[in-house]
Amino acid sequence: MDRVAGSAADIEARLWLRRRLQAAGLEARADEINNVSGRLPGSSAPWLLVGSHTDTVPAGGRLDGAYGVIAALETFRALNDAGHPAASKVEVVSFHDEEGVVGSGGLTGSRSLLRHAHAGELSGYLEIHIEQGPVLEAEGDEVGVVVGIVGIRRLNVLMVGEANHAGTTPYSARRDAGAAAAKLTWQVREILQRTDPTMVGNVGVVSFEPGSPNVIPGKATLVVEMRSMSEQSLDQAGKAVAVAASASAEDFGCLASIKAGLTIKPVHMDPEVVEVLMRVCEQSGRPWRRMSSGAGHDAGAMATRVPAGMLFVPSHGGISHSPLEHTDDRLLVQGCRLLLEAVVALTESR
Amino acid sequence: MDRVAGSAADIEARLWLRRRLQAAGLEARADEINNVSGRLPGSSAPWLLVGSHTDTVPAGGRLDGAYGVIAALETFRALNDAGHPAASKVEVVSFHDEEGVVGSGGLTGSRSLLRHAHAGELSGYLEIHIEQGPVLEAEGDEVGVVVGIVGIRRLNVLMVGEANHAGTTPYSARRDAGAAAAKLTWQVREILQRTDPTMVGNVGVVSFEPGSPNVIPGKATLVVEMRSMSEQSLDQAGKAVAVAASASAEDFGCLASIKAGLTIKPVHMDPEVVEVLMRVCEQSGRPWRRMSSGAGHDAGAMATRVPAGMLFVPSHGGISHSPLEHTDDRLLVQGCRLLLEAVVALTESR
Repeated sequence: MDRVAGSAADIEARLWLRRRLQAAGLEARADEINNVSGRLPGSSAPWLLVGSHTDTVPAGGRLDGAYGVIAALETFRALNDAGHPAASKVEVVSFHDEEGVVGSGGLTGSRSLLRHAHAGELSGYLEIHIEQGPVLEAEGDEVGVVVGIVGIRRLNVLMVGEANHAGTTPYSARRDAGAAAAKLTWQVREILQRTDPTMVGNVGVVSFEPGSPNVIPGKATLVVEMRSMSEQSLDQAGKAVAVAASASAEDFGCLASIKAGLTIKPVHMDPEVVEVLMRVCEQSGRPWRRMSSGAGHDAGAMATRVPAGMLFVPSHGGISHSPLEHTDDRLLVQGCRLLLEAVVALTESR
Repeated sequence: MDRVAGSAADIEARLWLRRRLQAAGLEARADEINNVSGRLPGSSAPWLLVGSHTDTVPAGGRLDGAYGVIAALETFRALNDAGHPAASKVEVVSFHDEEGVVGSGGLTGSRSLLRHAHAGELSGYLEIHIEQGPVLEAEGDEVGVVVGIVGIRRLNVLMVGEANHAGTTPYSARRDAGAAAAKLTWQVREILQRTDPTMVGNVGVVSFEPGSPNVIPGKATLVVEMRSMSEQSLDQAGKAVAVAASASAEDFGCLASIKAGLTIKPVHMDPEVVEVLMRVCEQSGRPWRRMSSGAGHDAGAMATRVPAGMLFVPSHGGISHSPLEHTDDRLLVQGCRLLLEAVVALTESR
């Protein structure tokens, strides 16, 4: 699947979706950023917005995003076919550019909607999505109630030593920025786990300068990424990383400097919506769990303005952003039924 | 100084050198690879070849190479002016491309000479050069007798884990090739020093794939370089690095594989020439030391076929391959005088 936001395939899929919305009896429209949505003609605010996104990463899978949009449409169709009053309180949506084409940062469509008056006409937002991680499958759970989306902080670490000839410079005379960066990189996991066992982090980028086998690195850079639902844990871990960076630098006669990079605050789903989703899952009799999302979602943007909630279905092998993305049909259908139950419960209570 | 081998500046400097050789009374010539040399007209084999190289790295210093060529010429001039018989036993040389232009690997001129019959007409080779390291200055020594040039072995290490989303993959499910590579990189110094305190090494190149802050590295590569005068130490250290690489890989659920890269054997200077150089230094009354060279030199190539010896003068701050390269004039002149003494002693004894 390759429907990068704004590509011909993405636009074509959005036109297809509008026809499907219309065929289901909805009034379909696209706003100026190309969020595609539909609601019953003659229905009135407030609407419960239900959906996800139909854009993909390059060479992505069939479920990331699209599953949530189709599940939302199917939820509406079931309600409408049954003549259920909730049908007129639902608005189905496919947000534009959730994944983030180059330079956009993603969540473009949901963030755009929040700036419009229409956001004030919404009673809430519901989204179902694949987990994109291995937890549900590994734990034997069939659905996850997302309590929030982790905050992200990136620390851009620079180690400054002195570039020198690797053959003629004795160890006692070295200031090896590469060794200092390597020691810190190795320690990050332990630092974060000691700070808060529920948080995760990553060092995905390291670079040594000048980058030659026979030159002692004079500079080294790395990016420490940290994710947690707790701002306090992110604060503490950031401080612990800074202390470790200075200690590693000192071990090798270097100086460490750290600049804050990308910073995204943790987002909490609405506690009442979470309660409803938990009750729906519990009543299903199937194994489920509360969990945070380590990846960003439109629900994270929406939660900053409207009561939002989110369900996860398992990702086989934790794989996503890949053609190998897979969830058994049984779990996809079951997720959709739970979404339907949640829509009924939420439109009745509001 | 920018006289990269084969550049216009390099060629011009070689023509200048030929004129200087001629002005000193030498018969100057350039061989087909552009080694420039000179000896007294009418003199006969064997000759003691004395010199170094006049090519530089890009944006190099004034001493690396050129000092040894000018010192050799000055040695000849002093002998010739004094009517000393050693003058007719000396051949002055500036080798082509010692530093190694892209792809050449360096030592091009000296290696070329070794393939010619002329190598059989040489009684030996003497070279004086700046140390390119901080040892002499730090130890308060004014000259170094080089006993050999360290061997080099490079190990290309690949860590294979699994690339995954850094937000949604719990630590328990990760196979972080970056962390495994970082731990090994940090350990290299300790491994080598434990194996042999006289050896050095370096990790100057590290790369994580795919190289994104929010993706757990699925692959990581690094180059471990090791240098020692002892083949046994290189063997032992290579095995210890392999053991540590496997252990680091196992810590993070990865697999390590190691391929041998660049391999250069240690080269020993001729023991009798070393004896002569040590005696000359001792008789000077100035502080000196025996030492190995951590960098490659034409003397290393020449030592594989003819009795070779080498002297070092201090490098201020250990700096070389830089416009900041510096040695006090007093030490440069003193080094040249010691070279003269050595030439006299060696041509008398052979």
